[in-house]
Amino acid sequence: METLSHQELTRLLLALGVMLLAARALGELARRLRQPAVVGEITAGILLGPTVLGALTPTWNAFLFPVHGGLPAALGGLTTLSIVLFLLVAGMEVDLSTIWKQGRTAIAVSASGLVFPFAVGFLSAWFAPSLLGMHRGADALVFALFFATALSITALPVIAKILMDMDLYRSDLGMLIVAAAVFDDLVGWIVFAVILGLVGGGVSGGIPIGTTVALTLGFAALVLTLGKWLVNRVLPWIQAHTSWPGGVLGFAVSIALVCAACTSWIGIHAIFGAFLFGIALGESEHLQERTRATLEHFVSFIFAPLFFASIGLRVNFLEHFDLLLVVVVLLVGTAGKTLGCWAGARYAGVTQREAWAIGFGMNARGAMEVILGLLALEAGIIDARMFVALVVLALVTSMTSGSLMQRLLGLGRTRAIRFADFLAPRSYLSPLRSTERRGCIQELVRAVCDEKVLQAAEVEREVWQREQIESTGLANGVAVPQARLEGLGRPRVAVGLSRSGVDFDCEDGELAHLIILVLTSTDDHRAQLEILSDIGRTFRRPEMVEKVLMVDTYTQFLATLKVNPPTGPHVTRRE
Amino acid sequence: METLSHQELTRLLLALGVMLLAARALGELARRLRQPAVVGEITAGILLGPTVLGALTPTWNAFLFPVHGGLPAALGGLTTLSIVLFLLVAGMEVDLSTIWKQGRTAIAVSASGLVFPFAVGFLSAWFAPSLLGMHRGADALVFALFFATALSITALPVIAKILMDMDLYRSDLGMLIVAAAVFDDLVGWIVFAVILGLVGGGVSGGIPIGTTVALTLGFAALVLTLGKWLVNRVLPWIQAHTSWPGGVLGFAVSIALVCAACTSWIGIHAIFGAFLFGIALGESEHLQERTRATLEHFVSFIFAPLFFASIGLRVNFLEHFDLLLVVVVLLVGTAGKTLGCWAGARYAGVTQREAWAIGFGMNARGAMEVILGLLALEAGIIDARMFVALVVLALVTSMTSGSLMQRLLGLGRTRAIRFADFLAPRSYLSPLRSTERRGCIQELVRAVCDEKVLQAAEVEREVWQREQIESTGLANGVAVPQARLEGLGRPRVAVGLSRSGVDFDCEDGELAHLIILVLTSTDDHRAQLEILSDIGRTFRRPEMVEKVLMVDTYTQFLATLKVNPPTGPHVTRRE
Repeated sequence: METLSHQELTRLLLALGVMLLAARALGELARRLRQPAVVGEITAGILLGPTVLGALTPTWNAFLFPVHGGLPAALGGLTTLSIVLFLLVAGMEVDLSTIWKQGRTAIAVSASGLVFPFAVGFLSAWFAPSLLGMHRGADALVFALFFATALSITALPVIAKILMDMDLYRSDLGMLIVAAAVFDDLVGWIVFAVILGLVGGGVSGGIPIGTTVALTLGFAALVLTLGKWLVNRVLPWIQAHTSWPGGVLGFAVSIALVCAACTSWIGIHAIFGAFLFGIALGESEHLQERTRATLEHFVSFIFAPLFFASIGLRVNFLEHFDLLLVVVVLLVGTAGKTLGCWAGARYAGVTQREAWAIGFGMNARGAMEVILGLLALEAGIIDARMFVALVVLALVTSMTSGSLMQRLLGLGRTRAIRFADFLAPRSYLSPLRSTERRGCIQELVRAVCDEKVLQAAEVEREVWQREQIESTGLANGVAVPQARLEGLGRPRVAVGLSRSGVDFDCEDGELAHLIILVLTSTDDHRAQLEILSDIGRTFRRPEMVEKVLMVDTYTQFLATLKVNPPTGPHVTRRE
Repeated sequence: METLSHQELTRLLLALGVMLLAARALGELARRLRQPAVVGEITAGILLGPTVLGALTPTWNAFLFPVHGGLPAALGGLTTLSIVLFLLVAGMEVDLSTIWKQGRTAIAVSASGLVFPFAVGFLSAWFAPSLLGMHRGADALVFALFFATALSITALPVIAKILMDMDLYRSDLGMLIVAAAVFDDLVGWIVFAVILGLVGGGVSGGIPIGTTVALTLGFAALVLTLGKWLVNRVLPWIQAHTSWPGGVLGFAVSIALVCAACTSWIGIHAIFGAFLFGIALGESEHLQERTRATLEHFVSFIFAPLFFASIGLRVNFLEHFDLLLVVVVLLVGTAGKTLGCWAGARYAGVTQREAWAIGFGMNARGAMEVILGLLALEAGIIDARMFVALVVLALVTSMTSGSLMQRLLGLGRTRAIRFADFLAPRSYLSPLRSTERRGCIQELVRAVCDEKVLQAAEVEREVWQREQIESTGLANGVAVPQARLEGLGRPRVAVGLSRSGVDFDCEDGELAHLIILVLTSTDDHRAQLEILSDIGRTFRRPEMVEKVLMVDTYTQFLATLKVNPPTGPHVTRRE
């Protein structure tokens, strides 16, 4: 077997390690900046690719990501596997009943979001081919058809990732966008297969286009009916007679790969097969939560970052950059898709705000656009300038649609508040020096008061007054002394641990070991409610208090909170 | 970026899907036959590779597993990634304190298990080079050194997998074998680097051998001291400040890849870096059980089967098969390693049985031997016949060492008994027709009695008599009518569900909904104890009984038992 040399393997492992590290790190940074993680992951790829690292240290770039030999093939195989598995997980999360419920709207959005950009793209390419970077000698009709398709396509993986990152994936709006995107992408890929057939390229290896369409529809229908039924019958058998959870995991991944190979053979992209099988699998009542979680965690945090980082590796964005072309493609592309989807949504009776959110959501391109552009470049339909413009369109729309949707839907403001969001190292006291109620409150108040804005003595009086009205001791050794102050602004929280215990007149008569001071503004009723509710949910189980009492540092305290997420309903939970 | 064509991707996805499916299916079959799963996984590769599928349908074999172009590189990259991740997980399971405890014995076993086969190998190759398939024109000294190394090396991945499959990995014996294997493999790889240096091949890309040895020791020391300390400091920070569990997962995998690249660059195999980092990670008190489980499940059931199946793809075992050479290599190899390790273990005071188990355990070769042989073949040290003989040695020892160890340690007999092991579709009654105690017992007894061997009327009388002495109703609506019969042989179990409930005089005064009849032989006290204890543990939580009452079929009943393993201590649990 002709395989990679020892030195190539070293480079592959290093490249994968660096890509994953950078993608995860920038993904986390993006989350901090309230962006979807995928934006950070794509950026990591651009930094590591020819655009930045390649320009700064060409030697290192060529060492890590060479363009010849076995390594690009190995990396390409891995990123394809990654995106296939990511679409399997995305499919598992699809709720078919929600899609049927959204049926009429989804059809309106996808049809309008397909026809409108297609028309805009076709007409502009037909009347201004040279402006749009038609390859010399390419057929004008083929070029116009390609450009129209490129503008109509979305990017199911990127859209799914953005919706997941924003915790919107399983919502009605999320399922509507996913359904419309699946439809648009399927049609887009079929049209693209036609175009490649016209120039004699043939992604589908000689399968006539009519057959591709028929096979696509047939395959989808088969997987979603017979396949779904079979999966539901087979899962209990696998769980009963093979090792757990290995049996189900191996089954899910191997069948997803075979389905991906099927759609790839049909001539549409491999991801559709994995996505369809994912839907069939996710619909089964016998799929265990634990199997779902194992697949989802591994795929979302290992495979997905690797794939999205690999997008940026593919081109040098500065070399073939044509500003005019980029601006034209960006404007035409964004206007066509956004307006098309918006119009469809409005027609189906969606509110103004949500219709715009749908438009911007559907506008996300990403991987699909890049793959389509790459194939068109290889088939001699477009030139390198147009390719870069398409890639820029893909990146810009992927990066902006998340935050535009977030702003339109006002998600920044409805996010659930957690008490740890308002903690700081200096407001974490372990152990508390005092052993009686008043002294503890004094210590905690001092930890959050800076004498300029907040007078400790005054705050302490308020907290003590509140404490007199009714004791703030809860169950499990937790107490939440609190006060609402005028004009406080952002809430302040301090945590104090007491191993010996303090009498806070707790519900169960025990001493309090974990004392959390909560100060909120008089005009922010919601903050106080949510913080207190979050504390209650977090420390509902007595083990949790015991765990927290055993930590040594502030960081370990935060880590313990994170790895033991609260259970039970929250006061204001967005669904 | 030069990458795989659309058609190549289709083939890659199909090949991966088929490999995984076959490996998992045969792995499960091997488990049924009380063999380690890895034996089935390797067999799957041989069936799919040139030896069987290639001989039967060369077209399909060439389509799925071509030997030229980008596909072998892609598959090779993926299998390397797989084995690196598998060694990360294997490292995470290592318990350093157990290794220190076994220190003296481990050193004796590994030293004797290294020197003895090395001497045997060197002498036989020195005095009978042509019999052992020395390549024409190769240096006799180099050849003898290589053959000696090939016989001394073990296969850490295969040994780890076999020990895990047999649930022995974390035992004292398991850790002893792992420690000795790590040492032998490290030395083996360093010696091999020297040999390649002699013929001018140079795995290490021109690094002098002294440097390789120094770097190996330095890297290992660094990871296990500073690395371990750093990981333990960094983990709480990651858990506190990044998304959960993605932060830790991404960190673990990316750093493992970087460490693998380091050892690969040093000139020893990539797996050592991942293994060492795995140890450092697994030792951290802050690593959560859930992170460990996610990594372990995904890697053991997706990546490991892919890697082990890929071994069989590499060669046609029939084409270059030289029976005499194979027998000689098998005998010399097995005798040298087994006796060497046995002697070392006996010297260190291990019992006779365990010393043989260690000898056979350490004799497992597998992947390492194949990789070593491949490199030697490419460097012109050995010919194809010798390569096949080494591969056969690898496969035969991998396949036999598990069952030999199992037999020597008597593991077949000490496995924990579960009540579901004795169930059959016909002894599962849902729903029971009767609504009173005697009638239910009658139904259940009839379901397990075949009138030839077991008289239903007589058994029923025995069960009813036992029931009169003391009621068999437990808590949570479970009842276990039972009897011990003379000369019964294998225990018999029947399960009956009653939605309306039957009065079995339960501990908590409730009606019984799940009635399990247990018949055991009078001379098998242990079976009865274990079955009753297993039933008690399985249905300790009331939710479990509710879940079981909701299933529709026998298979779903078994599946529910499997995916909700019992908690709490078992009567006779092997550790």
